[in-house]
Amino acid sequence: MSVKINIEKKAQQLNKQFENRGRLLVKCPDRPGIVATVSKFLYDHDSNIIESSQYTSDPEGGAFFIRIEFHCEDLVNKREQMEKDFDMLASKFSMDYDFTYGNERKRTAIFVSQEPHCLMELLWEWQNGDLETDIAVVISNHEDSREIVESLGIPFHYIPANKDIRKQVEEEQIRLMKEYNVDLLILARYMQILTPEFVDHFPNQIINIHHSFLPAFIGARPYERAYNRGVKLIGATSHYVTNDLDEGPIIEQDIERVDHRDHVGDLKKIGRQIERRVLTRAVKWHLEDRVIVHDNKTIVFQ
Amino acid sequence: MSVKINIEKKAQQLNKQFENRGRLLVKCPDRPGIVATVSKFLYDHDSNIIESSQYTSDPEGGAFFIRIEFHCEDLVNKREQMEKDFDMLASKFSMDYDFTYGNERKRTAIFVSQEPHCLMELLWEWQNGDLETDIAVVISNHEDSREIVESLGIPFHYIPANKDIRKQVEEEQIRLMKEYNVDLLILARYMQILTPEFVDHFPNQIINIHHSFLPAFIGARPYERAYNRGVKLIGATSHYVTNDLDEGPIIEQDIERVDHRDHVGDLKKIGRQIERRVLTRAVKWHLEDRVIVHDNKTIVFQ
Amino acid sequence: MSVKINIEKKAQQLNKQFENRGRLLVKCPDRPGIVATVSKFLYDHDSNIIESSQYTSDPEGGAFFIRIEFHCEDLVNKREQMEKDFDMLASKFSMDYDFTYGNERKRTAIFVSQEPHCLMELLWEWQNGDLETDIAVVISNHEDSREIVESLGIPFHYIPANKDIRKQVEEEQIRLMKEYNVDLLILARYMQILTPEFVDHFPNQIINIHHSFLPAFIGARPYERAYNRGVKLIGATSHYVTNDLDEGPIIEQDIERVDHRDHVGDLKKIGRQIERRVLTRAVKWHLEDRVIVHDNKTIVFQ
Amino acid sequence: MSVKINIEKKAQQLNKQFENRGRLLVKCPDRPGIVATVSKFLYDHDSNIIESSQYTSDPEGGAFFIRIEFHCEDLVNKREQMEKDFDMLASKFSMDYDFTYGNERKRTAIFVSQEPHCLMELLWEWQNGDLETDIAVVISNHEDSREIVESLGIPFHYIPANKDIRKQVEEEQIRLMKEYNVDLLILARYMQILTPEFVDHFPNQIINIHHSFLPAFIGARPYERAYNRGVKLIGATSHYVTNDLDEGPIIEQDIERVDHRDHVGDLKKIGRQIERRVLTRAVKWHLEDRVIVHDNKTIVFQ
Repeated sequence: MSVKINIEKKAQQLNKQFENRGRLLVKCPDRPGIVATVSKFLYDHDSNIIESSQYTSDPEGGAFFIRIEFHCEDLVNKREQMEKDFDMLASKFSMDYDFTYGNERKRTAIFVSQEPHCLMELLWEWQNGDLETDIAVVISNHEDSREIVESLGIPFHYIPANKDIRKQVEEEQIRLMKEYNVDLLILARYMQILTPEFVDHFPNQIINIHHSFLPAFIGARPYERAYNRGVKLIGATSHYVTNDLDEGPIIEQDIERVDHRDHVGDLKKIGRQIERRVLTRAVKWHLEDRVIVHDNKTIVFQ
Repeated sequence: MSVKINIEKKAQQLNKQFENRGRLLVKCPDRPGIVATVSKFLYDHDSNIIESSQYTSDPEGGAFFIRIEFHCEDLVNKREQMEKDFDMLASKFSMDYDFTYGNERKRTAIFVSQEPHCLMELLWEWQNGDLETDIAVVISNHEDSREIVESLGIPFHYIPANKDIRKQVEEEQIRLMKEYNVDLLILARYMQILTPEFVDHFPNQIINIHHSFLPAFIGARPYERAYNRGVKLIGATSHYVTNDLDEGPIIEQDIERVDHRDHVGDLKKIGRQIERRVLTRAVKWHLEDRVIVHDNKTIVFQ
Repeated sequence: MSVKINIEKKAQQLNKQFENRGRLLVKCPDRPGIVATVSKFLYDHDSNIIESSQYTSDPEGGAFFIRIEFHCEDLVNKREQMEKDFDMLASKFSMDYDFTYGNERKRTAIFVSQEPHCLMELLWEWQNGDLETDIAVVISNHEDSREIVESLGIPFHYIPANKDIRKQVEEEQIRLMKEYNVDLLILARYMQILTPEFVDHFPNQIINIHHSFLPAFIGARPYERAYNRGVKLIGATSHYVTNDLDEGPIIEQDIERVDHRDHVGDLKKIGRQIERRVLTRAVKWHLEDRVIVHDNKTIVFQ
Repeated sequence: MSVKINIEKKAQQLNKQFENRGRLLVKCPDRPGIVATVSKFLYDHDSNIIESSQYTSDPEGGAFFIRIEFHCEDLVNKREQMEKDFDMLASKFSMDYDFTYGNERKRTAIFVSQEPHCLMELLWEWQNGDLETDIAVVISNHEDSREIVESLGIPFHYIPANKDIRKQVEEEQIRLMKEYNVDLLILARYMQILTPEFVDHFPNQIINIHHSFLPAFIGARPYERAYNRGVKLIGATSHYVTNDLDEGPIIEQDIERVDHRDHVGDLKKIGRQIERRVLTRAVKWHLEDRVIVHDNKTIVFQ
């Protein structure tokens, strides 16, 4: 199909364009000389820093975080040696670190139930080349989204779900994540509870959109509860999924103003606009390696 | 003092300017013909509608609310008859209603503890003639604000407070509210808990500013808890005080964006900006009779 | 096609649901008694006011505006008499007025060039039943959007355009507007200049989205100029088209924050998000008869 | 006076607290190795990086900018040598650079005419210890603010101004700037035009607040013009003053929503809230050396 071919071509162009682009994320105990050491390392490895952001949680004995985006000619052939060299330096500073590369896009699975607005927004951004990912598969417990998903050349798997068959549903889902070699799971209004076993498979790899301004209205039916409380603003929150319901590290939040004339149905409509932009922003930042999780909070290097 | 005289002169001018201005607030079961009846009543009483807002909670058998601001020549002499006539009409429609008049400004008491930013903002708006009230008295459990308050010609009462002497403190406060003939109590970061007895004296007459986006972070130390949760937005909420802590009808809320670099001290600084504007807006709307309480929610006719 | 049938069914349901719903818009010189008269008229014609908004441009001799939404059983059969009766009342007050009915949705034409984001947003809202209109036709000087438009069962007309053939292009467009019986033209990033003759055909019936915060950056290439000026916010403006370029009555505006790191391409991306929500809001308000044009400004009864 | 003593004590504490804190701002042609060199330099001079932000205007041959905040024990005694050493490095990279020190607060002059809201906001933030400056003097062409300014222990100079005496007024002002050893001039709604000669004395040292969303409504009476145009948002802009009226590098902008009910007086009231927060933010960023001017635009390292 023409649409599919276009998207693939765009993806290939982007991979090509960024094939000499690398990113380095580092987390370690703070001490003098880290920036000097890391930046000298990159310079010695023919890499020019394009963008760099850092954060120290506490100037007195806190943790240090840095994200560097760099350009290096012929990176594809140099990266192996670079990683090997960096590993020695890393152990000296007790660093956790990660290299990622512009020509290796993350692979994404989108989980959705009936409400398609978040899925649609993600597909839209992806078609525009604004989501740095390959959408490997869409999984749903409803058939509604099959047509639009398949028309874009993305595999769609219908897996009916309810609490009685949760275990086998999740086994099938985990199998698919492996089959499609997925790096990131996006719960785009997927209205099923995940078991701890499932969540443990994907640490800091599941991004959810919750339809309230957390920690207000944790759990079910947040718009109804917002209406009943008479709040003047409603919100949405995108966060990594952990095994505490709606308590995972928050990546992004936003709100809109409402008033006494807005009934529950209006809140839901307004909320859909918030949800889709909040989830999309969070996913983008994750895909660009801008999010670091630390102590159940996120550092977001925008 | 010159400042004081200026403010009094400005207040007198405003009273003069609005002496033919009246407001009518009505709440009743919805039924056809209310607007026709009320607007005909005003027309028959030589009153021209300046502004009118209405709301029906539910088109099927809900409650009906209307706020009308009107102009009537020589209102001072006509109002008694007008109220008497309206009372008959009101009973026919089972109306709760209230007339207020432009030359009778509400009298306000501001309660404050150590943090002065909300008090300062209210005083500032009031000096500019933007708060439609006479600030009758400021009450504090600290001496810090005495100088600025008294320099504006406003009586300042220092009443030390703690939980052991709560009863006698509140008796003194109630006595002062009567002495100063106060219509509205503003808790401008007054950090003492009020007893149910005190609150019951002033139904829908106490406005508080809570330093969080309610219902998130009800209770103490909201900025610390916001910091610990890692939220990406912080907020403030202005609400009427009821005997459920931080559960009264919300009048106004607002937020600001924060990020991982903002420590608790930063959240407090940013929060002060939100608190002062949220409280001031809520107080303004109350003073202009724009807020109606219904079922622990507010209708705000902006 | 299933999508098309679903949308039509939804439209029919909405028409049914609102068939007893009417709206009355009135504009006249201000004088006492208008609200009383109009509300009594509706009451006498068995109509219950659901929502009412009014505005007086100047309490001293200004213009008066009111929008009333009402419910009336069997409105379809009563409306003719109602309109006849109102006409007499209207001439007494020198009223301009307009009745519209819930079962007569406005018919819309969307004009688009290459960038599809505004078209997509409108189609999306319309599919959700959130745009109170029948999209009668889409017209474009590019073929790009044909597939998506036709898949929703909407006629698509490709009319290549350039300044040399402007006259014949516009004749064809005007012919199509008549053929499709169109009430509203939406320029959803249609990048062709319209002649005064064309615009005069559709007074206050053409809504445009301009990709800047008007009156800043009137004319071409606003994002490039915003970038060069170093603004810290970019915006979009939806307005009625008149024969002064980008000078027509503004319906809605919004902005997003940008910073020094955002190059022209980033501004365009961020801008697309603003454009689509600003245009959609303006169109919604127009379709719900919430917008009144007066002296090259709009009164928007939200 | 007690207020004055308190503020001075707070300032001394802040100076003490930050006496080992330095900042380095660098601007140079981009080339590999800059970060490595600069960070190694700081490390070799016993300085630990607290915060670092950088920006490259164009990865292909653009300009490179970096702002580093660092901690160095006994900085007071080490800084001379540090600056000498850095100078050699700087010439190698063709760097423009600037060291500033935590114990040397910038000295500020505030210029104001009749409207005091921006002055008041700056004084308020300064009293709270939130403005990293010594307010050396306030200059006004009106007497209105004398009382409040002098009560805080700040010298107040009344210099009547009009276009006929502009030359001698500005000579007196320049003399005072020297006398008070001023680093930054803040035009806090100072409604006099400055001559090119005056502006040339203080390149990138004069911050103005313009009461519109620039480049909309350049020049006089922006609120009146915003009202006449019927905009739905109004704004304010803080910028460095150059000899092109309202065309200097923009530091910060913000907006508020307005609607058809807001007359010019309302726009002014709402605008005052925007102006005071926009100017205060811009001044804060300048004082913290977060703003770099480049090509009539600003890089703001928030």
